[in-house]
This record gives sequence, structure tokens and C-alpha cells, in this order.
Amino acid sequence: MVFSMQEAKPVLAIDLGGTKIIAAIISSQGQVVAKESYPTLAGEGPQSVIDRILFAIDHLLSLRNIDSSQLDSISIASAGAIDFNQGLVTSSPNLPGWHDIPLRDIVNRRYRVNTFLINDASAAALGEYHFGAGKGLNNLIYLTVSTGIGGGIIINGDLYLGPSGSAGEIGHMTIDINGPRCSCGNIGCLEMLASGTAVAREAIRRIGQGEESSLTEMVGGKIENITAEKVSMAAQGGDSLASDVISKAATYLGVGMVNLVNIFNPEVIIVGGGVAQIGDLLLDPVRQVVKERAFQLSAQAVHIVPAQLGDNAGVLGAAVFALQQKLD
Amino acid sequence: MVFSMQEAKPVLAIDLGGTKIIAAIISSQGQVVAKESYPTLAGEGPQSVIDRILFAIDHLLSLRNIDSSQLDSISIASAGAIDFNQGLVTSSPNLPGWHDIPLRDIVNRRYRVNTFLINDASAAALGEYHFGAGKGLNNLIYLTVSTGIGGGIIINGDLYLGPSGSAGEIGHMTIDINGPRCSCGNIGCLEMLASGTAVAREAIRRIGQGEESSLTEMVGGKIENITAEKVSMAAQGGDSLASDVISKAATYLGVGMVNLVNIFNPEVIIVGGGVAQIGDLLLDPVRQVVKERAFQLSAQAVHIVPAQLGDNAGVLGAAVFALQQKLD
Repeated sequence: MVFSMQEAKPVLAIDLGGTKIIAAIISSQGQVVAKESYPTLAGEGPQSVIDRILFAIDHLLSLRNIDSSQLDSISIASAGAIDFNQGLVTSSPNLPGWHDIPLRDIVNRRYRVNTFLINDASAAALGEYHFGAGKGLNNLIYLTVSTGIGGGIIINGDLYLGPSGSAGEIGHMTIDINGPRCSCGNIGCLEMLASGTAVAREAIRRIGQGEESSLTEMVGGKIENITAEKVSMAAQGGDSLASDVISKAATYLGVGMVNLVNIFNPEVIIVGGGVAQIGDLLLDPVRQVVKERAFQLSAQAVHIVPAQLGDNAGVLGAAVFALQQKLD
Repeated sequence: MVFSMQEAKPVLAIDLGGTKIIAAIISSQGQVVAKESYPTLAGEGPQSVIDRILFAIDHLLSLRNIDSSQLDSISIASAGAIDFNQGLVTSSPNLPGWHDIPLRDIVNRRYRVNTFLINDASAAALGEYHFGAGKGLNNLIYLTVSTGIGGGIIINGDLYLGPSGSAGEIGHMTIDINGPRCSCGNIGCLEMLASGTAVAREAIRRIGQGEESSLTEMVGGKIENITAEKVSMAAQGGDSLASDVISKAATYLGVGMVNLVNIFNPEVIIVGGGVAQIGDLLLDPVRQVVKERAFQLSAQAVHIVPAQLGDNAGVLGAAVFALQQKLD
């Protein structure tokens, strides 16, 4: 077990997302002993977001009345493509203006404590594996379905990051070779077809073309205000356009999962992120597609389940990652 | 190193493909000390193919003047979906009539020596990793592109088979959600679009619709006799239809590799199988697609190279696999 040392120092973990920054102190036993959350306000650009991260760290330290030398490490889970070896956020669709930002070293220079930087979905995978829906299942895939689609891979009980630390970009797997171009430069990515953004965009497109839906009234006629959450609510209320949009997104998500099941033969695929809160309305059709299309042995072996840790997954996983490095 | 024991017993390795059966004796140092090849004649059904495998084993043993007790083990690499835990060939598009055939136990009962059964592309991945194009590269994907498309995955220096032993079905990744149905039950699989079978089928279809090509003369007007090899020859001779067919298949293959690069961030993707013999005419456009579409860090990290071991990869890999089990 990772957390075997009694009285070991805690980790200060940051989860940097496009919408919010979560800062937490995690004990060496994996307990969240303090946690705060701030809006990212990503539109203000990198310097402003970095300042908020540093403020969040300072504030947590002062709240606990400790200084950084009393930390095991600081571990940052960030949205975007991470260069693990260099400690850079190389780019992120949800963090405008971030290009090769040396976030690890910025934090490290200020607090003079071991600092790690990994992708947020990879961190969440590790969190769910140690404390959540993946406990005891050594080969798993974690998918976060929200604004985008991120992924994390656990192989034989270890987080798999690849030699550059950039593995796990499951959302950027082409499933429709004739599909729309994605902001990542690839074509027909799963993220373009099954993310929350995709669900909202498809509902807006169809209503814009004149289809009827209770969503129009729900947003007071301002159809640009339709979100995936609202589409989900409308679907649960029996709206047929909303149900159809969710059902198509579920099919796309199922096709992506068939690919993962055929490639990885995982024990479990854990689905987190805002869209996952739709629950079985989304996951049942996904399971059906996997059952119908994936190789039988692998399809029988896999469970497709919702995440259990909510927004604690990233900070818990980031902490586990840091503590594991120490053991190596 | 796997082969550290001097004077250890050799492995008898079998590579069972849709076209031929290769039987070899591999020393504990990884030398091919004897090798024979037989036509599979898969159309005659499982019993007949099994009889040929048993004959091949008997014949090799008598050639070397040894009996099975002098073997470390027998290790079989087979086409198709393998249930590793049960030792079954559960199904294979290239082995008609094979359904849940307990090939491992059939061989084990007759020769009373440790017997292993793994997928042929997984075995080839292990062979190329230890002796071929993947030497020293601990995170790699092996793709065999021939009649179908098979795959094998090496993660941190170990063959990744998944908990059921059915991982690595890279050819059965959907890349065209609106594409043709595959014999595996899935839709728009890479194999349906980029295998040798797909290349031949597409050339036949287009010539059948009236397009001009030197292929028509090459097969004496019998366009049903067009093979991927002939399409490749015609392309190398400057035939524009053949070049276009190869180029489209290369794009499909590139799209599949973008998915693998984004998911695995591998150090190398090794391409084996008959179609890979087309060489850079195929691989250059594949590399171009990866460069254009995959995440930059992962695209920069990966090399896409031809396999080096030819048809020895499967038997060598099967032998490595068996010797590794012994060490555990």
C-alpha cells in the first residue's frame, strides 16, 4: 500500500481545470484534510491563473498554519497536454493562452519542495483506482466526459503515462474519419461527438434548424444558452429531441469504449465528469453498444461504471502520484 | 535478460496462421535451431489443421532426435481471439470452424510438457521487442497488416495481454463510424479499411466500376484475382488507380496510428505482415498523417518502422513468452 508510513508529511495537491481550481491538503494516508475551490477564470490568461494557484497554495498553508517545508510535495493535476519530463503545460483547449508554461518549476522555485505535474484525467484515474470505483481492479480506464473528454490508464496497478508522459488522450481518438475537425488538429475525435460541448452543440443545431423541443422554453428562447446539463434534464423530462441527442452521444461514447475494450481488455471503465452525472440514461446505451460490438471475451470482462469520488478524484490521485514517486 | 540460463532446455514454438503453420525449435538463448513450414489448409477445418500441428511437432522432435521431455515447453502463437486463461482459440476469421478449440490442452495432453497459447500478433510483438525492430524500446505497439490487422502491445517491457488475455485487437478499432460492418461484428474497423484484403477489395471494386488500371492486364482480365501484392506492384510501376488505393489505405492506417499514438505515446510502432513489405510507399504517408494529426509531444516521440524478423517474429516471441512464464 502506498500510504504505509505513519506520521509522514502531507501532499498539497492542486487540480487545475478550465472552470475551477481545487487546492487540497492530503495526508499520507489519503485523507483530504483541507480543501478549497476557486474559479479558474481561464479567460484572464496564464499569469492571472498562476497567481490564483499560488494564492490558493499560500492560503491553504496559512490555514493549516504550516510552511512548505512541512509538505512531502506539491502535486498538480492540470487540464491539457502535459510534458511530464519538462514539467510543462504544453497546451490546453480549456486554458486559453497556455503554451509550454513551466508550471512545475514556477511552483517548485517558490516553495522549494518536490513538485509534480501530471494530466488531470490521469490523476483522477489514479484517485479512482486507489479510493473509488476502481479499487482492487488493476487494469482500468478512466474517462472524464465534461467540456472535453479526458482519459487515464492504469495497467497492472500503475498509472501509464508513456515515455513522454503524454499517453491517455482517449478523447482524441478518431471514430469518424469523415467527421468534424477537432481543436486538437485531428478529425472526428470522440470528444467532438460525445462531450458535453458536443451534446449542447447538437441540440442547438437541431433546434436552430426548426426542430421542436422543451429546451427552447427552458432557456427562454435563447437557444445559445442550452447546455449538456439542460439537455439531460429535458431528456429525463421526456423531451424527444433531447433524448435523441443524448442517445446519439451515448452511441458515440459506446463506440469509443468498444475501441478501448478491444485494445485493453480492461476490468472496468470508469466514467467521471459532468456528463457522467446523467447516469444510466447515458451508461445503459453505452453498455449495450459494447455488448453488441466488442470482442466477446473482453466485453464479458468489462464493467462500465460511474466514478465515485466526484471532484476529489484529481487531488487524491495527484497526491498518490507524488507519494509513489517518493517510494521509487 | 530472459535467456540467462546456459544449457537450459529449448522451446518448441508454433505459429498458426490462416495461410501457414511454422514450427520451430528455439534455444533458451533465442536461436532458431530448426524450423519448418506447412500450409495451414484452413478450409479443411479444425481437426485437419490440429493434425498438421501435431505432425509438425512430431517431425521436429524426430529431426532433432529428442522427445518432448527434453523441451522446456511448447508455445503456440495462433491467429484469432485467444482465451489465454482457458487455452482456447475462441474464434478466428482466418481459421474457419474454430470456435472454443482447446488447442493448448490438446497439445499439452499429448506431449505432457508445459504448453502456452497466445495470440500471434502478441507473440510477434514480443519477438520484435526482444530481437528485432523494438530492441531496447520498452513501450511499443506492433501491428501486422496482412489479410487482417493484428496487434500486440509492450508496456514497460512486458507484453500486455489484459486480464482475459484478449487485449491488443487494434485492427478492430472503429475509425469510421459509418463504415462497413466487419466480420467481428463491429463497424468501420481499421482492418476493414486498411488490411491487404481491403486494398484488394477496393481495387476490384473500382475496376469493376469501369476505372482503368494496368492491374486488369496483370491478372489477364480476371479482376477477382487482384491481391494487395499485385496492387502494390502496379503502384510501384506507376499505375494511378493502384497508387490511389494504396494511398487511401495508408491514410486509414495513419488514422489508426494517430489513435494509438494519442492513447499510448509509444516509442515505436512496428509494422509487420505482408502489406508492410510495400515499405515507404505505404509508411511515408502513414508517418505524414501521424505528424499532422497526433498530439505534438507524442507524435515527436514515436518512430514508425518496418518489422525486422519476417516470419520468425511469431515463433521467437512465443518462445520468449514461455521462457518468461518459467521465470515468474
